[in-house]
Amino acid sequence: MNTNRVETKLNYSLLSLDYNSISQKIDQEITLTGVIHRLRVLPQVTFLILRGERFCIQSVVEPPLKSDHLKEGDFIRMKGKVSSAKLSDKTIFPRDIEIKVSELTTIHAPSSILPFDISKKVLNVGGEVLFDMRPISLRHPKQRAIFKISESIVNAFQSFLSNNGFTRIFSPKIVFAGAEGGANIFQIQYFDRKAYLAQSPQFYKQFGVGIFGRVYDVGTVFRAEKHNTNRHLNEYISLDFEMGFIESHLDIMNVEAALLAYMMEYIREHNPYEIELLEIKLPMIGESIPAMTLDEAHQLYFEKKKIDMRQEPDLATEEEKFLTDWSTRELGSELMFITHYPSSKRPFYTKDDPAAPGKTRSFDLLFRGIEITTGGQRINDYQEQVEKFKTFGLNPDDFDSFLQMHKYGIPPHGGLAIGLERLTARLCNINNVKEAALFPRDVHRLTP
Amino acid sequence: MNTNRVETKLNYSLLSLDYNSISQKIDQEITLTGVIHRLRVLPQVTFLILRGERFCIQSVVEPPLKSDHLKEGDFIRMKGKVSSAKLSDKTIFPRDIEIKVSELTTIHAPSSILPFDISKKVLNVGGEVLFDMRPISLRHPKQRAIFKISESIVNAFQSFLSNNGFTRIFSPKIVFAGAEGGANIFQIQYFDRKAYLAQSPQFYKQFGVGIFGRVYDVGTVFRAEKHNTNRHLNEYISLDFEMGFIESHLDIMNVEAALLAYMMEYIREHNPYEIELLEIKLPMIGESIPAMTLDEAHQLYFEKKKIDMRQEPDLATEEEKFLTDWSTRELGSELMFITHYPSSKRPFYTKDDPAAPGKTRSFDLLFRGIEITTGGQRINDYQEQVEKFKTFGLNPDDFDSFLQMHKYGIPPHGGLAIGLERLTARLCNINNVKEAALFPRDVHRLTP
Repeated sequence: MNTNRVETKLNYSLLSLDYNSISQKIDQEITLTGVIHRLRVLPQVTFLILRGERFCIQSVVEPPLKSDHLKEGDFIRMKGKVSSAKLSDKTIFPRDIEIKVSELTTIHAPSSILPFDISKKVLNVGGEVLFDMRPISLRHPKQRAIFKISESIVNAFQSFLSNNGFTRIFSPKIVFAGAEGGANIFQIQYFDRKAYLAQSPQFYKQFGVGIFGRVYDVGTVFRAEKHNTNRHLNEYISLDFEMGFIESHLDIMNVEAALLAYMMEYIREHNPYEIELLEIKLPMIGESIPAMTLDEAHQLYFEKKKIDMRQEPDLATEEEKFLTDWSTRELGSELMFITHYPSSKRPFYTKDDPAAPGKTRSFDLLFRGIEITTGGQRINDYQEQVEKFKTFGLNPDDFDSFLQMHKYGIPPHGGLAIGLERLTARLCNINNVKEAALFPRDVHRLTP
Repeated sequence: MNTNRVETKLNYSLLSLDYNSISQKIDQEITLTGVIHRLRVLPQVTFLILRGERFCIQSVVEPPLKSDHLKEGDFIRMKGKVSSAKLSDKTIFPRDIEIKVSELTTIHAPSSILPFDISKKVLNVGGEVLFDMRPISLRHPKQRAIFKISESIVNAFQSFLSNNGFTRIFSPKIVFAGAEGGANIFQIQYFDRKAYLAQSPQFYKQFGVGIFGRVYDVGTVFRAEKHNTNRHLNEYISLDFEMGFIESHLDIMNVEAALLAYMMEYIREHNPYEIELLEIKLPMIGESIPAMTLDEAHQLYFEKKKIDMRQEPDLATEEEKFLTDWSTRELGSELMFITHYPSSKRPFYTKDDPAAPGKTRSFDLLFRGIEITTGGQRINDYQEQVEKFKTFGLNPDDFDSFLQMHKYGIPPHGGLAIGLERLTARLCNINNVKEAALFPRDVHRLTP
């Protein structure tokens, strides 16, 4: 029998254009596909900005080539010669070339005209329309740019950890119990019984330490937050890692500091277009990041603001904002670690600090007024974990599969979780974390 | 106020050891952490195999160093000199060195002894124990190796697509409607209404084409399969991509062929240890992969096996096995594309083939007897999609957020989904796909 064959060499037409090399192709003919982003038809010439996979390219169409049947939003293929230019529009990249079009084919002309103008430099859509029409509003260059930054955060996270001996794991999302406690957990009907959606990969990354020594996980987690705020999402991407053979939570903070320094360099190198387009100021992460205890943070707030939060087990939203404003001004750091949260306020797997009764070896990292990381050392001793369950009023027998690792051995370990959308939002100076999620979910929103 | 500072330079003790360079360190002293994998105490010498993050290292402890208080399963730190060796145990890597231990510290001694022997070359645990005790059984070198292969599949997928202009997206997991139809969808209570767990990122990767031109997604998807088979999981990792400006499904098949060729090379390069340990035979992917239509496949099966499946809209399990056996034997390919599934059998977003009435521009990829990929061209025309909804007895108004892209324009596009656990299982010659999931979920299993 004769069969057809599919080549393992990529067809030329499927290759992606290397935009960085276009500027070296002056006078050469190239082919581009994309959508007409902006169109300006003058009597003798038409200026057409083509929106490609990541960038927008300026092109010039001159008669006899017809351009009067074109409209913004049409998907086209164009052929043309690369020629030198000097452009100033930051939407366009590269700005030292333009295409003199010699051939232009419409691939697909939409049946309706966009309900808002995405060719404007700033996308001007009000309130919920931005989210209601997400498949369309995300086509705006500044909207897309947010998610190229977000992509780089993830890529940097993965490559830093991979280079440092971490193994990638995928933790299950349907679970038998919540790791974080509290009421903000979604219940599902799992055949004939109840199950939950994972609030974090906590149990599984701890298991991972026993298996691979150090692991990371990039995946969706779920929180049934009833509060519809600028800071919360009902599902979000959690960047998690966990590692063994540590001395204390300080080792985890050290890895995070090194990771973030690497990440900012990665973005600086890979995202010059987005940095300029969104006017991003990457935080300077120098040789160190400041750290203070929760008690010290409350005390500082009390001294400077005359508001007494010293009995509170956590930071208030206003304190978080105050603290990074203060550290930016006084210490030159937009990032700040807060350590030693009380045992009562941290989950049952958190290790208490023998040197500070009632406090844990835990930390948060604040960045531009918001907590972007929670982490710490975990309990690795079996008896210690059993006792902690009891202190929390929980029955250790309900967690026997979790306790396997403690029973059969796990080295001292710890880890952290970074909220991807929060970090993206803070980097891009976005107030509402939902704008840093492609398709956000909140108490009112399940679509698109 | 004086604050502490956390350095952004990684502490020496937190760096991961570069195992590939150990063989170049003969006579140098190094420090290793890990767990005692195998221990053989002889009168004059103790042989200790240390299980590190990925590899196992042979070491030799000689008196006066005490080794009689050590036991398998203990977590230790050791210092010692690298010396030449010639070892044959495939669990060990590298096999041209061993460590002459000069210092040995127990970091953590477990409270219980492992219930089964993971120092054996083959892990001999029966039936469900393998899964019941997953945090422990996965510590066996051959179990770990499966997931280092799985990790490389994901890394290769990401880097191939990223190098070819694809943007990574994260699709939501709580959705308003299923993309694949059918009854195998989990329902959840989402505050005051019903929602579902995503069966695939289908809608969102199609949206992604309108935004970024080409996208990929690596994430968990959910199927409420009541059948507890060797081929099904209730949640699994789906490797998805979707791209615009294609001519037909053949372009998607071409990208997959190139991707798989790249992936096998990636694994060959990055996983020599695991390939040897698991005795993996990577499929030879030469210049092309054979393809036939579903009708041709049924016809071939009928001719060779005298079993008539020619009226069936899909392949039976036995046919899938027959077809790759046949193509391996006759065409020298363990992979085989099957195309042109009937319209009735493929989801509502699938594009019909104008050249083959009643058939779609769709394909599956078979590998060693099982389908590892489903893909095809999607409908991009608004009216065509509206009509298809009606043909399927669905109300287009229920899908208005999905239809936004068709209405406001999306170029011809298509994509595919690869099941990570299935591909891993086939590569590692594992019969039960659950063994290729770290923490599998089936109708009976929610723990650990």
